[in-house]
Amino acid sequence: MTAEVSGEKSQHEGREYAARLARVQEVMAQRSLAVLLVSDPANLYYLTGYNAWSFYMPQCLIVPATGPPHLFARAMDAQGAQHTAYLPAQQVHGYPETLVHRPDVHPYDWIAERALDLGLLRDHPEAVVAAELDAHYFTARGFLALWSALPSATIVDSHELVNWVRVIKSPAEQEQLRVAGDIANKVMQIAIDGIEVGRRQCDVVAEVQHAQTLGARTLGGDYPAIVPMLPTGETAGTPHLTWSDLPLRAGEATTIELAGVYHRYHAPLARTVSLGHPPARLAHCAGATAEGLVAALDVIRDEVTGAEVHRAFTTTIGRHGLTKESRIGYSIGIGYPPDWGEHTVSLRSEEQTVLRAGMAFHVILGMWMEGWGYEVSQSVLVQADHAELLTDLPPELTVKP
Amino acid sequence: MTAEVSGEKSQHEGREYAARLARVQEVMAQRSLAVLLVSDPANLYYLTGYNAWSFYMPQCLIVPATGPPHLFARAMDAQGAQHTAYLPAQQVHGYPETLVHRPDVHPYDWIAERALDLGLLRDHPEAVVAAELDAHYFTARGFLALWSALPSATIVDSHELVNWVRVIKSPAEQEQLRVAGDIANKVMQIAIDGIEVGRRQCDVVAEVQHAQTLGARTLGGDYPAIVPMLPTGETAGTPHLTWSDLPLRAGEATTIELAGVYHRYHAPLARTVSLGHPPARLAHCAGATAEGLVAALDVIRDEVTGAEVHRAFTTTIGRHGLTKESRIGYSIGIGYPPDWGEHTVSLRSEEQTVLRAGMAFHVILGMWMEGWGYEVSQSVLVQADHAELLTDLPPELTVKP
Repeated sequence: MTAEVSGEKSQHEGREYAARLARVQEVMAQRSLAVLLVSDPANLYYLTGYNAWSFYMPQCLIVPATGPPHLFARAMDAQGAQHTAYLPAQQVHGYPETLVHRPDVHPYDWIAERALDLGLLRDHPEAVVAAELDAHYFTARGFLALWSALPSATIVDSHELVNWVRVIKSPAEQEQLRVAGDIANKVMQIAIDGIEVGRRQCDVVAEVQHAQTLGARTLGGDYPAIVPMLPTGETAGTPHLTWSDLPLRAGEATTIELAGVYHRYHAPLARTVSLGHPPARLAHCAGATAEGLVAALDVIRDEVTGAEVHRAFTTTIGRHGLTKESRIGYSIGIGYPPDWGEHTVSLRSEEQTVLRAGMAFHVILGMWMEGWGYEVSQSVLVQADHAELLTDLPPELTVKP
Repeated sequence: MTAEVSGEKSQHEGREYAARLARVQEVMAQRSLAVLLVSDPANLYYLTGYNAWSFYMPQCLIVPATGPPHLFARAMDAQGAQHTAYLPAQQVHGYPETLVHRPDVHPYDWIAERALDLGLLRDHPEAVVAAELDAHYFTARGFLALWSALPSATIVDSHELVNWVRVIKSPAEQEQLRVAGDIANKVMQIAIDGIEVGRRQCDVVAEVQHAQTLGARTLGGDYPAIVPMLPTGETAGTPHLTWSDLPLRAGEATTIELAGVYHRYHAPLARTVSLGHPPARLAHCAGATAEGLVAALDVIRDEVTGAEVHRAFTTTIGRHGLTKESRIGYSIGIGYPPDWGEHTVSLRSEEQTVLRAGMAFHVILGMWMEGWGYEVSQSVLVQADHAELLTDLPPELTVKP
């Protein structure tokens, strides 16, 4: 990369980060928030580019109503922020090592004190401080430390404010998702090819992980927010079980759920493989679900509600005597462990949110029955008048001898 | 496995789980706790065997002062608990799908109400309820929901009660760690072999992940709580950065940190590879650190404090003009993302905890300098009179042409 191109790229990135911050501060103004404390690593990455496996220790971005945000992290990680975050050094603050895993003091004691010193936090009743109260890495103890440093302020839930700003993807983000989709297609094909009677589950997963990280085109893959899941046989009736070293058995079905990931953007994908002729109930379920998927994808476009997409699916499978209570999809984009879902729009019967061009979804049809199961999915980008497929592997049950 | 052996195994496992629960309830009695709410997935696994990638949704084990514990999880995961948890069905409770990702209601509203109905929780001032207030997946919103359901009770921090019970490993757990150590040795050798000028970082990581999941002996590997980390060149001065698709360059050093994992037990391992003749400062650091490692391992045995181990290391590297402020190791065992550390004993200057036979440590010497770095480590089991090496790859800087 020449210095000139690098300069242009970085100017472009600077404009993108500035626009994201402006949208967040606009919503903060609408809600009369004085400060927003962001701790979800996906939101940190979205707002600053900061990207490291440091989220197991307390870290956050404090966004004031106006002016630049400040990043707080463990000292050794604050140093790393120089390599990945789009923030000048004076907006990055590292707390000392002596605060790590102590019963008596907590990093959020230090963060709150420093933020008060910097004038980023203020302790008076009119100062409404929003925090991500349901974010995975903002613990109860972190919350209590913040609260005890701000006895007079009002602390409220941000209700995923930044997640909701993330919901419409910029053209640059859509490109990342397309690469992620290419990786997902390639990796799923390797998984399907790898499933054979007698092979250990872990042997197939090893090939899947290898392919996820190699990536697609000439672009390397990133780590997924969820490891590949491969419930098989009787456990295929249950989601979220990981692999074992037991062999795959003739006559059993295996569901595979994985993601292609590029620069933290996820395109998840699920398929099912039957080793041997499938039982009638499985074949029937696969047929009905395929029809339901077509119906759901046909409905997706700008201005349709999540509920309408859900209804298109349930009406179709209902004609085949099947029902599904849980949601059939969720918004995707940036993801960090333990979840690649964005925690915003769901495709379910009560979802009145209107879909907009630039949103992205994992349309996932998980049919978990008593002792067996079937899964098929596609990842899609919402366009003005259709659903653009990020993944396009045939959405069918694979039957292998 | 014959039914007879399986029956014996399961009787043995039953005794192990009963003993673990008894130790936890003994500590609860010492602290006059009426109830303990466990949400760390490593602690759930330790106490019940429950193992699934379901921790991104609220889930917990409620342990009363006496009597059996009860598991609470999302309905679709409660079903999966039948496959992995050592609990009868009547001690597993699934909350409905309608509580997932809602601004107005939270799964902990349901969990608290159900636990009150079952008599597991009681709302009066003498009932001291301990919760894992710094566990990653017990969010502030979960805590606030619990608190609002128990306005009269006293909620206190468990201060990692179960983690501290986990700190001494049973003979069965020590065996799992030895398998994990074998996997770590094998995987690190593949990483070192894979590092070559011009190869992309992601190509090496893909091979590492493949080997981690294949495992060692005939035993399959499990997913690590932290992805392989491979900071290289200038970023080698910073911990916790993950890989990119840029090529490895001549004249640069790469630090590698990974773990071998078996049935959730982790043996982490770190090494450094220099592509080309190392600069004098790196060679000097590697030599001093190797000497320091020997000194630290020599001290480890039953009845020594963490501080003594730390002092043996710092005294040795001090003679070579080097210092290290941060800890040089931490207790290991069961791990789930985002961290394989146990959050109990650290090997640092202030650690007065006495090491005991059966404890396990990752002795990790991360020397993070301005713009460069060096890492070397071993995982060890504390025995009565020595440190048993779980990993035994030569602890040296690898120099490749």
